[in-house]
Amino acid sequence: MNNSTSLKVRLPVLVLVLEVVLLALYASFVTYDDNANAKMQNNETNPMDNSLYKDYPFFADVQVMIFIGFGCLLAFLRFYGFSGMVFNFLTATFSIQWAILVQGYFQFYYDGKIHLGVINLLNAEFACAVVLISFGAVLGKTSPVQLLVMALLEVPIFAVTEWFVLKHLKITDAGGTILIHLFACYFGLGVTFVLYRPNLNQGHVKEITSYQSDILSLIGTLFLWVFWPSFNSALTVKGDDQHRAVLHTFIGLSSSTLTAFALSALFNKRGKLTMADIQNVTLAGGVTVGASVDMMITPSAAYALGIMGCIACFFGYRYLTPFMARHLKIQDQCGIHNLHGLTGLISSTAGICAILMATEETYGPSMYQIFAHRAPPEGDPKLLELQQLIPGLKPGLGRTAQEQALFQVAAIFFTIAAASVGGLLTGFALKLPCLAMPSDKFCFDDELFFDVPSDFDSMGVNKAPINSEDDTKV
Amino acid sequence: MNNSTSLKVRLPVLVLVLEVVLLALYASFVTYDDNANAKMQNNETNPMDNSLYKDYPFFADVQVMIFIGFGCLLAFLRFYGFSGMVFNFLTATFSIQWAILVQGYFQFYYDGKIHLGVINLLNAEFACAVVLISFGAVLGKTSPVQLLVMALLEVPIFAVTEWFVLKHLKITDAGGTILIHLFACYFGLGVTFVLYRPNLNQGHVKEITSYQSDILSLIGTLFLWVFWPSFNSALTVKGDDQHRAVLHTFIGLSSSTLTAFALSALFNKRGKLTMADIQNVTLAGGVTVGASVDMMITPSAAYALGIMGCIACFFGYRYLTPFMARHLKIQDQCGIHNLHGLTGLISSTAGICAILMATEETYGPSMYQIFAHRAPPEGDPKLLELQQLIPGLKPGLGRTAQEQALFQVAAIFFTIAAASVGGLLTGFALKLPCLAMPSDKFCFDDELFFDVPSDFDSMGVNKAPINSEDDTKV
Amino acid sequence: MNNSTSLKVRLPVLVLVLEVVLLALYASFVTYDDNANAKMQNNETNPMDNSLYKDYPFFADVQVMIFIGFGCLLAFLRFYGFSGMVFNFLTATFSIQWAILVQGYFQFYYDGKIHLGVINLLNAEFACAVVLISFGAVLGKTSPVQLLVMALLEVPIFAVTEWFVLKHLKITDAGGTILIHLFACYFGLGVTFVLYRPNLNQGHVKEITSYQSDILSLIGTLFLWVFWPSFNSALTVKGDDQHRAVLHTFIGLSSSTLTAFALSALFNKRGKLTMADIQNVTLAGGVTVGASVDMMITPSAAYALGIMGCIACFFGYRYLTPFMARHLKIQDQCGIHNLHGLTGLISSTAGICAILMATEETYGPSMYQIFAHRAPPEGDPKLLELQQLIPGLKPGLGRTAQEQALFQVAAIFFTIAAASVGGLLTGFALKLPCLAMPSDKFCFDDELFFDVPSDFDSMGVNKAPINSEDDTKV
Repeated sequence: MNNSTSLKVRLPVLVLVLEVVLLALYASFVTYDDNANAKMQNNETNPMDNSLYKDYPFFADVQVMIFIGFGCLLAFLRFYGFSGMVFNFLTATFSIQWAILVQGYFQFYYDGKIHLGVINLLNAEFACAVVLISFGAVLGKTSPVQLLVMALLEVPIFAVTEWFVLKHLKITDAGGTILIHLFACYFGLGVTFVLYRPNLNQGHVKEITSYQSDILSLIGTLFLWVFWPSFNSALTVKGDDQHRAVLHTFIGLSSSTLTAFALSALFNKRGKLTMADIQNVTLAGGVTVGASVDMMITPSAAYALGIMGCIACFFGYRYLTPFMARHLKIQDQCGIHNLHGLTGLISSTAGICAILMATEETYGPSMYQIFAHRAPPEGDPKLLELQQLIPGLKPGLGRTAQEQALFQVAAIFFTIAAASVGGLLTGFALKLPCLAMPSDKFCFDDELFFDVPSDFDSMGVNKAPINSEDDTKV
Repeated sequence: MNNSTSLKVRLPVLVLVLEVVLLALYASFVTYDDNANAKMQNNETNPMDNSLYKDYPFFADVQVMIFIGFGCLLAFLRFYGFSGMVFNFLTATFSIQWAILVQGYFQFYYDGKIHLGVINLLNAEFACAVVLISFGAVLGKTSPVQLLVMALLEVPIFAVTEWFVLKHLKITDAGGTILIHLFACYFGLGVTFVLYRPNLNQGHVKEITSYQSDILSLIGTLFLWVFWPSFNSALTVKGDDQHRAVLHTFIGLSSSTLTAFALSALFNKRGKLTMADIQNVTLAGGVTVGASVDMMITPSAAYALGIMGCIACFFGYRYLTPFMARHLKIQDQCGIHNLHGLTGLISSTAGICAILMATEETYGPSMYQIFAHRAPPEGDPKLLELQQLIPGLKPGLGRTAQEQALFQVAAIFFTIAAASVGGLLTGFALKLPCLAMPSDKFCFDDELFFDVPSDFDSMGVNKAPINSEDDTKV
Repeated sequence: MNNSTSLKVRLPVLVLVLEVVLLALYASFVTYDDNANAKMQNNETNPMDNSLYKDYPFFADVQVMIFIGFGCLLAFLRFYGFSGMVFNFLTATFSIQWAILVQGYFQFYYDGKIHLGVINLLNAEFACAVVLISFGAVLGKTSPVQLLVMALLEVPIFAVTEWFVLKHLKITDAGGTILIHLFACYFGLGVTFVLYRPNLNQGHVKEITSYQSDILSLIGTLFLWVFWPSFNSALTVKGDDQHRAVLHTFIGLSSSTLTAFALSALFNKRGKLTMADIQNVTLAGGVTVGASVDMMITPSAAYALGIMGCIACFFGYRYLTPFMARHLKIQDQCGIHNLHGLTGLISSTAGICAILMATEETYGPSMYQIFAHRAPPEGDPKLLELQQLIPGLKPGLGRTAQEQALFQVAAIFFTIAAASVGGLLTGFALKLPCLAMPSDKFCFDDELFFDVPSDFDSMGVNKAPINSEDDTKV
């Protein structure tokens, strides 16, 4: 085998250049935020009121999801477990460092500096989740160099979209359904469309799981499942809003898990359970409750959303993914369109309904805190009245429910458009000669990238002639 | 192989019916509790005082124990790892949803609604732990349909027992020794007694571990070990009580772990360690400290309890489990009687001793907070005096230590009786023709329930003629 | 095989004797600290102010690192996975129990009692981490009896060193670089020097990984990576100090991870990634930021430290470890000198620089809180002035930056000396006839210590003749 995956030169050079640039940017622009700055401490500071104690528990849970949950979940292929876990590790680490800078510029920049606290890390982990979801679409056919370049391009495109949607369209998206899941999904589909490999539609001899890889992947699922309530609630308003976000996420996941078991057995030819369903479809409810996760939608609505998301996700895997691969040239390796796209669309729609149905009768005055842009604008006497009831309430834009709903719709379309175009452009970049993986045969094989242990060859079909003569010529 | 495990029709139908019923009940009866209700927020609410921040950290730890700890621990069989983890996932998810309703009716019901917060989820996870412990007794010989029916029946029987014991007998059981461990154990033994399969006493050809399954199971043990202090302390009074619960659990686990190593090597014929001991017996201390976990028993008593529980558990596995299987027709697959029953009895006894020995000299006035029913009744002048010292102290029943101890004894007997009878009846339900697994040969085999990957057949004795006539003789 | 590893008698006897002694000491000397003592509760106690809620979240994270992170990481050998995880479990459990007593005597002893709270457990887990790091140097060639004896000796030597360095030299070492990493490293090197086995320099036939063991080890790495910010910040001053510790650790780990990928590919002959690098070198940044982790070093300095530590660690593995094994008779199995020694030296140096550069302009008055010994002494009028600004500020020693730096240097030399001598003496103890492992062939083999499952023999070269003619006859 020749050195065609180019780790020897390209990966080290790319990484070292990125590191030097990152270090220079950190040195020039990054300083501590007030909660991390020793100088801000004085006789009125209570150390236990530091934002660390509000943010760090959620940050730690999201860390487990990113590095262990995603890592294990992506290690589901028999001969691609090293790559799944390790490239997830590499991509995540780089994405977070990079997002701290890019998001920092858009969200935490003042006095000529990006001000850093754990809250920035938490935001950066969400940007990282976006990259990792997109990674799912191209798993197995991208080199680590390509993944880094993808992260390098996706993070800023995401950050600009996020900035535009949150600061200009001013939408409500506590669980990140629109910005995280829809963006990540359509970006990933854009990339994989450009990286289309006709040969893979017939299935690849190494595109199989093993008993151990299936269990490993299930462990990843379980870690994601267990900490998903933290993910969906990490950036909500503190107090009852965050409390509801935890409840809805848990309920949505629970109902989607039950549904996944039923559908898996029902539609299996031999009446057995399919591990891929347990590993993926069970999680659909976590995404589906996202857009309305902090609203007063009632627990039963969360339950129903979990079921609906799961059904869409399940049939998406069964019918839509093969259809897209064959007829639309979109090979979605991990089926992110089912788990993040279809569920994201349902979730966004549910969010809009919840916005339209929100009344002061249900929410009390704190409605203007959850739907911050519906709060009366500065100077409106109603604002003062509300501030008596909710002391920290900030002035809003005085939007009606209908206006807010329209902005949500606009945000959905804008996000999908920006993600798709960004994904397509990124795909073309990844096909540049200096980056591209050389041929269709370079797939699903740890041996391309790793010094594998001696038992790797005996792990299965690996000994069999792989990809036949025809393939190697491509 | 015919469709004899009936996943094709029975599982989907059962699950979908359950989901519709659950959704209807959630829609009719479940609403938010005050901490999750936007309307309750006003200018006197501090968001950071929300109960979420007291309960969620413990809830998250228990989540890891339930889904990952139990899941991995139950995956210890070579050909039954998928089933162990996946059925744990299915059973846990359903049990929690169901317990939210049933416990909600008994504990959180007022104004015609069940009021939902993270505290309900935490309680429901304990009910779920009960079901999963019982599951351990019948692991390998029950279908997922049977497990769901078991959960469907066990949760209400548990909830009624819990309600009766806590509200009427008014006992002290912070770590859940009586209600969780004893109930789960004797319920599980009741079920497995009815499901007795004579052939299994000679051992089943597939009832073996593999190197990887042993490691996976040990990871489960370690997650349970690490988070057990959270489990035992989750429902104690906040403050020093919870602090002691953490300390005692940690110390009890530590001493039982050391003891398990000594006994494992000492009683092994070849002087080697037995993985099953490390996976199970090490955890005995966590149960044994349960009933007195928040009391002032001294750290050394926790240490001694850990040793005692471990010894009982170890010899239980060695002598009692085989004896019960052969002579009492009780096949206790995971040895729950050792890890939860024997230790639970020791723990309950220790709890009674601790109650009898509690004095105001040791506890100060907060004795009447830990032993709430010993607090003077409403109107007693001593109550007012105590409330000066412990502001939130609630009036009690003025019980003496001896009275409280008698109620503890009554609760133990009542719990064991209710669990045993409930388990037997549930066992009979599981033997109904529409639910039963068809024959003794349907055991310990993932292939019955899953589309297994292609390397499953090469994982060991699987190639041998399985389930043939000869096998049943083994 | 004869009973040459002596688990049958020696392990049980040693463990049971230790347990009896520990129980007696706990009974005689250990009581609750004020936060765990029911009697201390009164009408001025707010239960949520209990130290439990400050310490327990960090303790739980460190628990995961110790038992799961270290356990999985040490299970990287194909035939030694049981031993890696299980001996980690045994050694950790014993070390913590023992450290609670020994550290308790030096740090938490007054009124004739050791006062126990979760903070003691947290400190004991750090002592435990010291033992586990040292364990890495002798992995594969020590029996569990030897490991227990090593822990028995190392914990007190560590506790005395810790006491002397913190109470007498009064240094600043928030992340435990000097006391944990340098001590553990040089102690471990001392032990392994004495246990030198010439045959192992040519490599042992069983000193190999498998696909599954590499993945397991990587999971361990990821758990360490994810929770390392908790480890480094657990014992800092609360508030902005702890906030910075989290930020710096995360940034240092991130940059060292990226660097590790670059170096791994660059220096691999075939341009591939080496799993051992991903498993170990990525973590170097966590150690390297340790000594200055809570100081105002700027985020970019943390970034640079991560890179520097990673480079030293990487080349240490590549050149220094083989050199030390061949020429210095120091066989460092897991390369702890690279991951803890070299990085620790860089970190200590960086810490000294940070101390020398600290000014009130950067830190404000809280400089005298972070560098507690630079605070003015009792009676100094400047102290009163500072206490107006930082209410809880304690009087210090009025040291200058230069003086503090000199004490840091002294502490580094003292720690390394104490650790090395302690390690050598411990090594000699482990070679006593009653403890020693019998021969060079007793290496890297779970079968020596465990009843292994039947698939163990088919896991690879195990069937092949192991180690020369002579060995196989023994």
